[in-house]
This record gives sequence, C-alpha cells and structure tokens, in this order.
Amino acid sequence: MHIFDTTLRDGAQREGINLSVADKLTIARHLDDFGVGFIEGGWPGANPRDTEFFARAREEITFRNAQLVAFGATRRAGGSAADDLQVKALLDSGAPVVTLVAKAHDRHVELALRTTLDENLEMVRDTVSHLRAQGRRVFVDCEHFFDGYAANPAYAKAVVRAASEAGADVVVLCDTNGGMLPAQIQAVTATVLADTGARLGIHAQDDTGCAVANTLAAVDAGATHVQCTANGYGERVGNANLFPVVAALELKYGRTVLPEGALAEMTRISHAIAEVVNLTPSTHQPYVGVSAFAHKAGLHASAIKVDPDLYQHIDPELVGNRIRMLVSDMAGRASIELKGKELGIDLGGDRALVGRVVERVKERELAGYSYEAADASFELLLRDELRRGADGAGDAAPSRFFRVESWRAITENRPDGSHANEATVKLWAKGERLLATAEGNGPVNALDRALRVALERIYPELAKFALRDYKVRILEGRSGTDSTTRVLISTGDGDAEWSTVGVAENVIAASWHALEDAYTYGLLRAGVEPAE
Amino acid sequence: MHIFDTTLRDGAQREGINLSVADKLTIARHLDDFGVGFIEGGWPGANPRDTEFFARAREEITFRNAQLVAFGATRRAGGSAADDLQVKALLDSGAPVVTLVAKAHDRHVELALRTTLDENLEMVRDTVSHLRAQGRRVFVDCEHFFDGYAANPAYAKAVVRAASEAGADVVVLCDTNGGMLPAQIQAVTATVLADTGARLGIHAQDDTGCAVANTLAAVDAGATHVQCTANGYGERVGNANLFPVVAALELKYGRTVLPEGALAEMTRISHAIAEVVNLTPSTHQPYVGVSAFAHKAGLHASAIKVDPDLYQHIDPELVGNRIRMLVSDMAGRASIELKGKELGIDLGGDRALVGRVVERVKERELAGYSYEAADASFELLLRDELRRGADGAGDAAPSRFFRVESWRAITENRPDGSHANEATVKLWAKGERLLATAEGNGPVNALDRALRVALERIYPELAKFALRDYKVRILEGRSGTDSTTRVLISTGDGDAEWSTVGVAENVIAASWHALEDAYTYGLLRAGVEPAE
Repeated sequence: MHIFDTTLRDGAQREGINLSVADKLTIARHLDDFGVGFIEGGWPGANPRDTEFFARAREEITFRNAQLVAFGATRRAGGSAADDLQVKALLDSGAPVVTLVAKAHDRHVELALRTTLDENLEMVRDTVSHLRAQGRRVFVDCEHFFDGYAANPAYAKAVVRAASEAGADVVVLCDTNGGMLPAQIQAVTATVLADTGARLGIHAQDDTGCAVANTLAAVDAGATHVQCTANGYGERVGNANLFPVVAALELKYGRTVLPEGALAEMTRISHAIAEVVNLTPSTHQPYVGVSAFAHKAGLHASAIKVDPDLYQHIDPELVGNRIRMLVSDMAGRASIELKGKELGIDLGGDRALVGRVVERVKERELAGYSYEAADASFELLLRDELRRGADGAGDAAPSRFFRVESWRAITENRPDGSHANEATVKLWAKGERLLATAEGNGPVNALDRALRVALERIYPELAKFALRDYKVRILEGRSGTDSTTRVLISTGDGDAEWSTVGVAENVIAASWHALEDAYTYGLLRAGVEPAE
Repeated sequence: MHIFDTTLRDGAQREGINLSVADKLTIARHLDDFGVGFIEGGWPGANPRDTEFFARAREEITFRNAQLVAFGATRRAGGSAADDLQVKALLDSGAPVVTLVAKAHDRHVELALRTTLDENLEMVRDTVSHLRAQGRRVFVDCEHFFDGYAANPAYAKAVVRAASEAGADVVVLCDTNGGMLPAQIQAVTATVLADTGARLGIHAQDDTGCAVANTLAAVDAGATHVQCTANGYGERVGNANLFPVVAALELKYGRTVLPEGALAEMTRISHAIAEVVNLTPSTHQPYVGVSAFAHKAGLHASAIKVDPDLYQHIDPELVGNRIRMLVSDMAGRASIELKGKELGIDLGGDRALVGRVVERVKERELAGYSYEAADASFELLLRDELRRGADGAGDAAPSRFFRVESWRAITENRPDGSHANEATVKLWAKGERLLATAEGNGPVNALDRALRVALERIYPELAKFALRDYKVRILEGRSGTDSTTRVLISTGDGDAEWSTVGVAENVIAASWHALEDAYTYGLLRAGVEPAE
C-alpha cells in the first residue's frame, strides 16, 4: 500500500494557507518522521517557491522513509515531451518520482484543454514514456475521473490504459470536485480495475464529507495507493485526511502501512503541522483532536470507571492521544475522581471529599461556571477542598498569593474619537499593601497590566506569564446586558499553558476573576509558596 | 425517511457547548424552520434544564414541521415501567414521541447495567409497551449496537425484536463508540433488516471520520431514519452532521426529505446555530462552510470562467452558499443586490452604488465586522451609501439622530466586594448638548442607561427599546486581550427585533458602536426623522 501525501501541493490550496520554502521543508521532515512513502512537494517550474523547495530538500533533507515526488502536467498538445519546458522542469527537480496530471473527462479535454480526445491520449503516452526513459517512476493522476467515467466510461478507461501501458506505476482515480459517495467510488474502482488491470490509486476531496470513507471504499475495491493531506488540508472543503485514513488502515484493517512506533506519533505530528501552517489544530479531528477521547456524559464516565473500552473505539495511546474527563453538571462522582487522577490528585476512597467537590461544581456551574475548558480553575477548586480536609472543617494555611482590596477600570471615548483605558488595583501580598495603575488597549488589558505592575516585585515568576487566549460568553443571552458573563482565559509561561474561568454579572469583573485564578495557578505551578 | 435531529441532546455533549434553555428554544426554532421531522430536546427528569425546556417549548413554540422528542432510558431492572419515576418524567414532558435508549451489547448489560440479558429484554418490552399504552410514539436507540453485534449477534438482534414487537416504531442501530466503517455498517444493517423485519434507523458518531458515510451506508442497506446533529456537534469527535447527510439525500439520492425551499436555507441555519452555541462556524464544513465553494488554484479559477460546473460538484445556491474566488472580494455584487431586495431597498441597475457598497462591506469585514447576523447595521450602511447618491458625492441631510462627543465607563470593585458601574455620555441632538450619567450592573449596561437618560426627552420613542441579546466574540484569539472584539446586539421594541454589530479593540467600545446602531435603527424604524 502506498501512503502518498500531498499536503505540500494540494494541501497548500486551502484558503488561509501560504507556505514558505522553510515551512515546506519542516512539514516534509514531519511527514518523513511519520513514515509516509511519498511526499508530493509541489510543481517545479510552475512556481519559483516549489522549484527552490526541490533544490533545498535535495541538499538539506535525508529522508528515512519517504521519496520526494514532483507534480506536473502532461506535455502540451501538438508538441513532444522531450521538448516540453514544463516536463523538463520536472526532470530538473531531481525528484525520483513524478506525478503527472492528465485529463480523463472528455468535456474537460475539449473545454479546458481545447484539444482532441486522441491527442490527449497521445500526450499521456508520450509524457509517461519520456519520464520513464529518463529513469523516473511515474504516477498518473486522472483528474475528474469519476465525473468523466459517468459521462464517457470508455474514454475514462482509455486514459487509464494509455498511462498504464506507457509505464505508469500507478494510475490514480481522482474525485476532483469531491461530489462522490463511497458506494459510487467502490463500484467504479472495482470495474476499472477489472477492465484495465492497472495498479490503481485514489485521490478524494471532502465536498460531501466522505473523503476518508471514499478513500477506504477505493481500497476495498482494490486500490493500493492512497493520496491524502495532513489534517485534510486542501482546496474548498479539503482533501482526504491522512491521519484517519492511516489509522483505519492500521487499526481497523490490520495492515501495516507505517514504520514501527510511528502511529503513536500521529497526534504530535498532526498538531506540529498545524502549527507550521499557522492554523489552530482542530479540536474535534478524529483520533488526534484534543476532544477525540473526551467524555462528558455522567453515564459514560461511570461506565469508563468500570472499563475504558466501554466508551472508546480504540486505546487513545495507540495514536499518541489520551482520554480526558470533562467536568460539567452532567458529570457525577466517577468523572470527578477520574479528573483528579488526570491532574495527579488522588481522591480515591474519600467519599465525603468527592461528594463535596461534586456539590461545589454543580453549584458553580449553575451560577454560570464551566470547568470543561478551565482545568486550572478546577484544580484550584479541588486543592481548596483538599485543604479543608475530609470533614470540610478546613485548616488555616493560605491557598492564595494575594488578597484584593479593590480595583477600578475606566474606558473613555474622547471627543477626538480616541479611546483611553486605565486600571488601578489595590492588593495585599506578604503583608504589604500594593497599589498600581496601568493603561491598556481595553479595560481587561489595563487590569492585567496593573496586576503585574503591583505583584512583579514580590513574585518575579509572573514576568514570564503571558495571556494566550481570551473568550467571552454571555449566558442567558435573552436578557440583554443584564446577563451573566463567563470569561475563559488561557495563560502560558513558555513551558505550559493553563486555562481559567471567571463568572460575574459583567465582563470586566468576570475577566478579573479569571485573571486572579490564572496568576494563582501559574505561581503554584512555578513552585512558589502561597502567602497572602 | 425520518430526519431526526439530536443537537439539543447528543450535540450538547460536545466539549465547549453549554446550552441555556433560551439557547435550546432558539435552536429548536431554527431546526423546525429547516424542516427536520423530529427534534430530540433532551432528557426530561434527568436534568432540570431539560425539564424546563420541554415545558417552555410546549408553551412558546408552534412547530411547523417537527415533532418534539423526549429522550430517556428503559426502566430500572427489577421494577415496572408504570412505577418508574424516570419513565414518568418522559410522559410528563408532554412530548408526543419518546426515544428510549436500550443496551444491545451483552457485555454492557452485565458490566454497566448489572442485570441479566433476559431482564434487559424485559425492560425494553415493558417500557415500550407502557409508553405505547400512554399514546406515545416510541423510537428505541440500541446503544453500542454494532460492537454488540460483533460480540453476540443473536442477542443484539433479540433486542431489536423485543423493541419492535413491543410497538417501537423505529429501532435505531447506534455506533456509540464511533469505531465503525461504512462497509461494516452496511453489511450489519442489511442482515438485521432481513432477519428482524423491523423499521431501522442509524445513529453514527464520527470517531473514524466516517459518520456521514456510515449514515448513508445504513440508508443504502434499508434504514429509513437518520439521527444527526447540526454541524456534527456531539461527544468526542461529534455526530453525523445533519447538513451533509440531508444534502446527500436531497441532491445525490434525489430524495425529498425537506419542505420546499428549505435546502437553500441550509448555510444560513448552520451559521445561525453556530452563533447560538457560540462556536465559530467551521469554515471548511461541507456544503455550508464559507470555503466550501472557494477556489484558489489559478487552473480552477480560469476553468470556472468557462463553466462553473467544471470545478464544483453542485450549484452552491442550492444550499444557500456561494462560489468565491479567493483573489476577488467575498461579498459579490449579486449578493449585495439580493440582500438589498430582501431589506426592501432596490439597488437594481445602479452599478456604481452597488460597487461602493461591495467595497465598504469588504473593507469592514476585513476589520472584523460580520453582517450575516446584523441586518440592521447592514441596512444602515446601505442607507448611508444611498444617501450619498450614485456618484458618491453625498447630500447634506443627516442620517443619524445624535452625535457623540465623548463617553466614559467605570467599573469598580470595592473593598467590601461589591461592584459599581457608572457611565457618562456627552451627546449632541437637535442642536442641544446632552450630558447624562447612569449606573448599571456592568459597564455596557451603564452606558446603555446613560444613553437613554440623555436622549429620552428628545426621542421618547426609545423608551420602548429593550436589549434582547448580547454576544461577544474575540477575533484572532491567539493574542490574548490585545485582540479585536466583535459585539452583536439584538434590540426589540415589542413589535420587532433587530440586530446590530460593533467592532473595536475592546469590548466596551465595540458594544458602544453596536448600541449606537441599535438606537439609530430603532428610531428610523419608528418613523422618526433623523436630526443630529
């Protein structure tokens, strides 16, 4: 089975992706680490960045698993492959493998290529033979194959035969417009295989939401080459996603398509590639999303305590992911215990303590809190309850680093139309009264800065803290600005990132609570001793 | 074919979704507009919010297309359905249809339910019969059906038979852990249909990335009831996405499953539901994503100029979406003209004017505005451009009711822990300088009140205006509190409701802009003559 990746060529067509040569080299290394067999790097000659990529990849990367593939088109109508500049650029790229795109839909030959059906076949034969004679391995992508097959099956198959007979190693059936469903893909692939005997590949787009299933349907029908992109990046909706395709082949079909140990790197590699292309990793991507093994319903959580396999289709560690329990008012004691374990806090056995935590979570969620996306706030709540002991009587040790006397935030729109934001905080820490004022581009930003100015001398650790993400949700939105506001904040210190939640009757006060938790948690994480 | 939506029950299991009763009612209205046949509203009795939802839905919504469905479990082991409190809550909900979840996997019966296989069958029979006797239509969800079938096919089928014979209208085969692939779903569904003769449904989860294909595979095998969620929301990776499933049935299978005209509302409804649950609409969702018909490759763009069907699998207008060339503007002339018509403003013919509106929309969307959910702000923009005339030179008539000199909002947290919010506005209206200060429960509420106090004497009409909804979205969230903020406000006057948008570098300023538009639009609507 060929695992053929086209993230660098077809994936780069996705809206919002714009890859530098350095990005492409980094992604190629990740894909090689993952163990794909082929990496399509781009269209040398058509695009200076792609030409440079091939030159630098040859110099800078020693591939352990993959072969580099250059993408290009069949020669021009009426010319010869040997004299075609575009074909020459494919050879000049030095790539050992070439994918040629060929038209397989009669209407496209006439409307887009503006040549005859016979000449198109000759273009395929001539270009494949020429590249083979120059020692290249050749794959042929039959563009619009499935639409073409529906319109003129004899011609579509003639293109497959022409490519195969001229020496193409694989002929790839492309669902270029992405409109197919699995049953169609399977039937057509099986027929083409029976009628031509060519080695077949599949290239699916996700316009019906079926690209992964379409790829597997072609495999079921005998295709032995799958073209995919990392995280499903690609034009319009995207391409078949490499990760669920490979995971299905390895874990559901029991076929070994990756080097040993590589599957367990899948989650890491998926997220690393998302970082390189500067897109937030999809939280809900199959297998590798941060939510892919997250459980919310109390029913599920109690079953998972009995046996994790009751509510997961694979062991998440197989793909480098992990199980997560989401704390919500749907959750019961079982999920609180599992969550504690996940955070490294053993609540086992202490039924009274767990019961109190469940009650506090329910009470706070009723008030608008949501701990699902705020692990750090949940851990602070847990630690507070632990400190109070099993009987809830509590001990006297402080759990916080500062005590708030008061704060104020002012936002002003001046007559000249400019905005000014100013905040003042008054705090106590280690017995000292601290007062600071700061400006910001908004009231929350000004409060954040004032808090830092006030505390930085006493807790120098927080110089490293930086706000990473900020989300606002108005609850019970039908009552207008009288509603409750929930704010989620992510904070990082270079090593780790943590999330906190704040709820109040307005956005400024809610943000303040989330900021307080963020600083408290960060200082605890840094090993500082609490001292109000 | 039953189109059964479970966004409000299974969709709410998605990490990050936390629905209020008001949210659920709004989503139910959207789903009814879309034309699904069944809306599963939640688990009454298990959860006070769900109980309240059923009570309020009965009072407040007149469904045109859908029937409301209550979800619950079969009765307890060893009891009787007639005495079961959980079953009673299902009846008390008043929903005409009940979905019962039943265990169909022998191991789950023993490990999670801790009863015998026979008693589980009896629980199914007893509960279905009891609900039928009370005049309810019953669907039975066979949890873990496909895993259960693999382990013990005879028992899995016995559960189907028990449900069907006791009077369940549909028996739904659930891939609860989501680990199945289409070929397995199809084979098992066909066999179960042949062996039991029951009417079958399918409930697929997306853990292999195949939920849509799995749903269609079951339909291919004879299932006539599909369970889906809007935008595929659901636990872990999510559920089968309602929109591509319905689009495939309508456009690929040629089956009519929606009321006339509803399919063209699909994109709008998908985005509206995303707004209600406060998740960014997925840009790459099949059919409805903003990128779903966006073309980047030069090759494609030039082919599309020849014939759009060369690179798209359906006409995007069929699903209310549109083709986008990524080099050109997002809002095309045609859509602006159509939108104007929708608002009762005829722009037909005036090419220069339409061109100017396109430019302004493009520029403002780049700055973070979004007019999709803010018709009133868009209408104000249109009216401003109309007033400037075809040549853009403009006339001198005012289009606003007041001019802002300055404003200020202060939020303060006092030493006693209480909050104070105070706002001052300085405005000009009808030649008068107006100054007012007011308090509120948050800075935006205080600004809103100060604005009323200042203007109410001059424009008594605005006494009737009330804020109905308020939403905040932080754009470009990776930069923490330095990001741009978009605020959407809905305002009502008892007769109608209108939506406005404001964008600025902080939430207070953005809210102010949305408030300004809300008051301006409301006064225009009330027939008041603009006079700064």
